[in-house]
Amino acid sequence: MSLIEEKFLKLGAEYAPGQEVRQNTNEIKLRFDKIPGTPVDFSHGDVDAFKPIPGSLDVFIEGVHIGGKQAYTEYRGSMDIRENVAKKLSNFTGAKINADKNFIITPGTQGALFLAMGSTVAKGDKVAIVEPDYFANRKLVEFFDGEIVPIQMDYFENDASAGLDLTQLEEAFKQGVKLFLFSNPNNPVGVIYSKDEILKIAELAERYGATVIVDQLYSRQIFEKRTFTHLCAQDIVNPENVITIIGPSKTESLSGYRLGVAFGSAKIIDRMEKLQAIVSLRAGGYSQAVLKTWFSEPKGWMEERILEHQAIRDDLVSKLQEANGFNVRLTEAGSYLFPRITQLDMPINEFVKILRLQANVIVTPGTEFGPQFTDSFRVNFSQDHKAAVSAIERVIQVVEAYQNEHVK
Amino acid sequence: MSLIEEKFLKLGAEYAPGQEVRQNTNEIKLRFDKIPGTPVDFSHGDVDAFKPIPGSLDVFIEGVHIGGKQAYTEYRGSMDIRENVAKKLSNFTGAKINADKNFIITPGTQGALFLAMGSTVAKGDKVAIVEPDYFANRKLVEFFDGEIVPIQMDYFENDASAGLDLTQLEEAFKQGVKLFLFSNPNNPVGVIYSKDEILKIAELAERYGATVIVDQLYSRQIFEKRTFTHLCAQDIVNPENVITIIGPSKTESLSGYRLGVAFGSAKIIDRMEKLQAIVSLRAGGYSQAVLKTWFSEPKGWMEERILEHQAIRDDLVSKLQEANGFNVRLTEAGSYLFPRITQLDMPINEFVKILRLQANVIVTPGTEFGPQFTDSFRVNFSQDHKAAVSAIERVIQVVEAYQNEHVK
Repeated sequence: MSLIEEKFLKLGAEYAPGQEVRQNTNEIKLRFDKIPGTPVDFSHGDVDAFKPIPGSLDVFIEGVHIGGKQAYTEYRGSMDIRENVAKKLSNFTGAKINADKNFIITPGTQGALFLAMGSTVAKGDKVAIVEPDYFANRKLVEFFDGEIVPIQMDYFENDASAGLDLTQLEEAFKQGVKLFLFSNPNNPVGVIYSKDEILKIAELAERYGATVIVDQLYSRQIFEKRTFTHLCAQDIVNPENVITIIGPSKTESLSGYRLGVAFGSAKIIDRMEKLQAIVSLRAGGYSQAVLKTWFSEPKGWMEERILEHQAIRDDLVSKLQEANGFNVRLTEAGSYLFPRITQLDMPINEFVKILRLQANVIVTPGTEFGPQFTDSFRVNFSQDHKAAVSAIERVIQVVEAYQNEHVK
Repeated sequence: MSLIEEKFLKLGAEYAPGQEVRQNTNEIKLRFDKIPGTPVDFSHGDVDAFKPIPGSLDVFIEGVHIGGKQAYTEYRGSMDIRENVAKKLSNFTGAKINADKNFIITPGTQGALFLAMGSTVAKGDKVAIVEPDYFANRKLVEFFDGEIVPIQMDYFENDASAGLDLTQLEEAFKQGVKLFLFSNPNNPVGVIYSKDEILKIAELAERYGATVIVDQLYSRQIFEKRTFTHLCAQDIVNPENVITIIGPSKTESLSGYRLGVAFGSAKIIDRMEKLQAIVSLRAGGYSQAVLKTWFSEPKGWMEERILEHQAIRDDLVSKLQEANGFNVRLTEAGSYLFPRITQLDMPINEFVKILRLQANVIVTPGTEFGPQFTDSFRVNFSQDHKAAVSAIERVIQVVEAYQNEHVK
């Protein structure tokens, strides 16, 4: 097998969120009748249920009318818009951000992540990533020929922290890891790293001279006003060793415009721009204009959106806790739940296919977030409230039916 | 120096088109007064002079109103839109294109190129590229740790062909090259490969089992109805070894929407989608809708656009030919000229900076297209006609002034 074939064998996307139509389901035999109900795709948020920021399309149209200046920006994005957004993100995070040197606009948060990893990982580099964490993290390290050093997060341990194994992280740094990538709030679990955890991560990174990439995609959607600690604003790690990633695709429902940003280390941002030049030149020029609406939403809009998500979360979590056969930790931020099925008699990938065919519900298998999560699945509950509740009831029905059959 | 530092040292973007504001010009001393005139940026087309396809914004807005289905497409793009465009491209090229298996929508043609190269080049692979050719080709091979095998194109040799050195190409295949990447029409020279050249390239690729990636970004803007030969429709190379790339960013002025496509080999398209999943998920969902206007322009619109570009080309070429000190080949397709300055007493990068500061004209240095083009520069003449003529006059003035000084 050639090198490139090997590389792409590892890069499977069959179970990735949004790719369900490409799955092979020929082998799947349903053991029960189909359960009727409104189809729900828990693999991503429903932007029809939670609409984009009001006025975002108008700002896009203004961008088109600006013409060439907006279509052909610097690869790192339009300077005007960088200044606008950098200022708002400085306020939000408490970090100093120079719009010229420390900031890049990217095609989605995924784009930021790819560019950041491509700018820091060379062949053979040891990279620490959390398990479970966003499905692309592992794939990115593999694509750039890095070596994954997994750090466990025991999210069922207690409610006061995310449960990161900090001893394991220090051990990884001692063994030569020079890059640590993690999402905060964590995707898929929806937990926030405690202040202690963030300070400790920062201290370790500084002590061992490591770079930290923090994906904070969901850091605006915090429930019950919990504390969120921005690593970039702690003044512990050398700022040239920190990249923070965030974007308006989730809580703000702007995913269709493909927008994200990264800020921090001038050196790494420079590299990211050079890479952007050969990856896709720039985030869509007209789309960049839409960032003007971000962090400038109508008064009360974000607060209301958070409360609506909290209400859905509460209903889904109650249902799962009342049912037999699930462990689930309450989401602290973002729109994800990562329930564990306590007794599952089939591979999670098969369960996910059955669920889709039998109950018209799409979820993402736990194994996308770490190979050991063979009994967990991820739900993005940014959905129509009623449809989401009915869909989780169907998930419970399917699990119970298969478990009862197993018991018989 | 670390591996990653080395890699990014090679990936300079300071002289890349559109990045001129990031150039260091502290060292540049002007030897003459500034020449007044409307600023012209020949590094890319002016979409204010040549506006996007009529109705493209309306179709985008329709896309936004479709909502979630349009925002979250498969990574390879919306099936409806793939079917729409694949059919039109089959008509255009004469190749069979299955919209499900052989087609992917990408963030710009640059995105298609990056994904195609990332899906075919592994560390140490020998890759043949043309000199001169699109500036990113070289950088892509280097980024993916391939080894560049340059193939010369003597575009001043005659007018009947592009001038590719086919002996050199065969030699490269004999020495283990398994991938050949080239643009047709050629960027930066604006010449079309003759039918003989395309057939010979195809025969060689088939004989040596090589894959061919053809970037046909400018293949709709053909002057004087010259013959254009689509390699993908010749039935010579195994279709699983061909990828064709095209997009609406240039002639159609849709660059601000970041859209491109690739079609051909199902195996490579599959890989490209897997890579897309970690690069930026998909081409902007709403933007994808805009592809419906492509190849469906109002009657006569494309013909008129071609004639307008032809008229600008003719004026610029006459000016350069009348002046002292330039060699230039007539553009056969696309919007580029690649003049050679016959006597230049400074590095081309310095000349380009002087031109910008002294005459308010931006051009791209020849060295972006191959290290040996130290006396050439590229002009994208998709500009306001009058402004372009005046700008080329200023280019001539600057060259003459510096040459005369040199003679003294």
